[in-house]
Amino acid sequence: MTESTDRISPLHGAGGEMMEQLLAEHVMPHFAARSVGRIDVTAMDDGATLRLPSDGELVVTTDSHVVKPVFFPGGDIGTLAAAGTLNDLAVMGARPLAITLAVIIEEDFAIADIDRIVKSFADVLAESDVAVACGDTKVMGRGELDGIAINTTGIGVAERAIRDAGAEEGDAILVSGTIGDHGMALLAAREAFRLDTELCSDVASIWPMIRSVLPIGGVHAMKDPTRGGLAAALNEMARKSGTTMEIEQAAIPIREAVAGLSDLLGISPLEVANEGKAILIVAPETAEDVLAALRNHPLGRDAAVIGRVGSSHPGRVVVTTPVGGRRFLDMPLGDPVPRIC
Amino acid sequence: MTESTDRISPLHGAGGEMMEQLLAEHVMPHFAARSVGRIDVTAMDDGATLRLPSDGELVVTTDSHVVKPVFFPGGDIGTLAAAGTLNDLAVMGARPLAITLAVIIEEDFAIADIDRIVKSFADVLAESDVAVACGDTKVMGRGELDGIAINTTGIGVAERAIRDAGAEEGDAILVSGTIGDHGMALLAAREAFRLDTELCSDVASIWPMIRSVLPIGGVHAMKDPTRGGLAAALNEMARKSGTTMEIEQAAIPIREAVAGLSDLLGISPLEVANEGKAILIVAPETAEDVLAALRNHPLGRDAAVIGRVGSSHPGRVVVTTPVGGRRFLDMPLGDPVPRIC
Repeated sequence: MTESTDRISPLHGAGGEMMEQLLAEHVMPHFAARSVGRIDVTAMDDGATLRLPSDGELVVTTDSHVVKPVFFPGGDIGTLAAAGTLNDLAVMGARPLAITLAVIIEEDFAIADIDRIVKSFADVLAESDVAVACGDTKVMGRGELDGIAINTTGIGVAERAIRDAGAEEGDAILVSGTIGDHGMALLAAREAFRLDTELCSDVASIWPMIRSVLPIGGVHAMKDPTRGGLAAALNEMARKSGTTMEIEQAAIPIREAVAGLSDLLGISPLEVANEGKAILIVAPETAEDVLAALRNHPLGRDAAVIGRVGSSHPGRVVVTTPVGGRRFLDMPLGDPVPRIC
Repeated sequence: MTESTDRISPLHGAGGEMMEQLLAEHVMPHFAARSVGRIDVTAMDDGATLRLPSDGELVVTTDSHVVKPVFFPGGDIGTLAAAGTLNDLAVMGARPLAITLAVIIEEDFAIADIDRIVKSFADVLAESDVAVACGDTKVMGRGELDGIAINTTGIGVAERAIRDAGAEEGDAILVSGTIGDHGMALLAAREAFRLDTELCSDVASIWPMIRSVLPIGGVHAMKDPTRGGLAAALNEMARKSGTTMEIEQAAIPIREAVAGLSDLLGISPLEVANEGKAILIVAPETAEDVLAALRNHPLGRDAAVIGRVGSSHPGRVVVTTPVGGRRFLDMPLGDPVPRIC
């Protein structure tokens, strides 16, 4: 049997010699040094063991990534898979320990692109000293999958995990930076548009920034506004806590290019995904210190207080417009951009 | 916007109202009662917390499932996703605690089928009292994914995890039952064949059986022979331990229907996937007791000693044929049946 050496074949996902070779040459080298326990990813066993710190709660989160295009301004599906999952741990207040990497690839996918994607993934992990625990590789036939899908499960430890439901009346509502960058950058990069904009995804692991904030205290709730954007995340936080999220529209940091494309396409920047941002609901006593700590970090230099937790409309988000009008910001039916993450 | 109520739409995977409704009506009801910690799947937060037993090693494993067809004789992708992951924990000697469920669905997939799949998944978990920790839902467009793909990450606890590399010279090699059932049943069920056979996948969670065996002691290595079948698993175990797996061909339990279809198609039953079987490498002193314990369990009634660990050809598998010839059983390039799991 002759196999092309630079494209994925069904045998690369079939549990034999070919899969071993793909993993040995194009995946494992990226994860060389980091071990999570006695049986680690280099053992290529049925799973891995995890060494746990003696105190703290274990936190686990999972995400599949089907972003289109696979490579986009500011990152790729590898960056996104790592950052997306570490960010879910971060907003639960959990220090990331390990991540799993399960990849489904379409036959004929370029192996050079696998290398590039796995390297992007590994680079994000290295920043936060996170190990790959174990992985899985499957191949689907031509036309059975559009390119590549990656699932990651993150495992972390929190002194005490922070919920997205913990908002209390009087708390300040902070965002860690500009809103809408990822969604609008992806949209601009889609083939249908091919807009030559300066838009760039914000995809990044926010744990280094969040870690600097947690010791200050007073963080009652956190969430990363991914699919459905700020609108979905705030609505969920309002519902779960039974509070009202009172937002000042003018206080929401939005890049000019994002606002411009948003106007052009009629898509709200508040409803599209962010991949390197957090919403923090913070006790009034520590809100200023938390804001200062966020701004002190490169990822948080545009952080802002965008509102306050009230009680006028339990479970709802109310936005005050620049001219003083008030309107509900509803839970979107869904993110207007498909395959955004 | 009007949405068909019985088919998946892109908005079902877009992080808003529609996704919440899908999860509330068709997914969460199946997982009602089981909780893993303070923040569980019903919180629908960014992740979940895990209550851990005070002793033992944490074991983690991940798998994506792209089986075709989605429903097959003996199970479906839900059964397979649950059993496949619990089995990876089981062969590491780990009691399963929790599992994640990340689903990628093609637009227009029937929601009734989602219900059926999630119920199958939940049924397997219930047998072993395993909780769903958290999940994720993504939707891809028509033609971007062939139906559905499921990723699961399992988390378990082992007193001391068992490796697949632990074989020692003189150990007995056991299989817990008949070989080749899953692969040949799937092949027979494929549209290209549509063979009306009595073949049925062996998909099942083997933890209840493995649990009954472990206290006997002497289990030096375990592995579940999935993709690439018995041939791939034995070769991996031989290589990692530097031993020789000496197999008696006549001792390998194979159903008549499996052997028949295998002859017909020219595909070796030793190279196709099993989804409810384990290979156990056991110290000679306890091998008989382990065999008896396996046979005492419904899933293990066809268990057999199929050979012995030797040293004649380090890293290789040697098969003695019924007429006394000896040949190498090589590592297959890959499983001959694509999308087998």
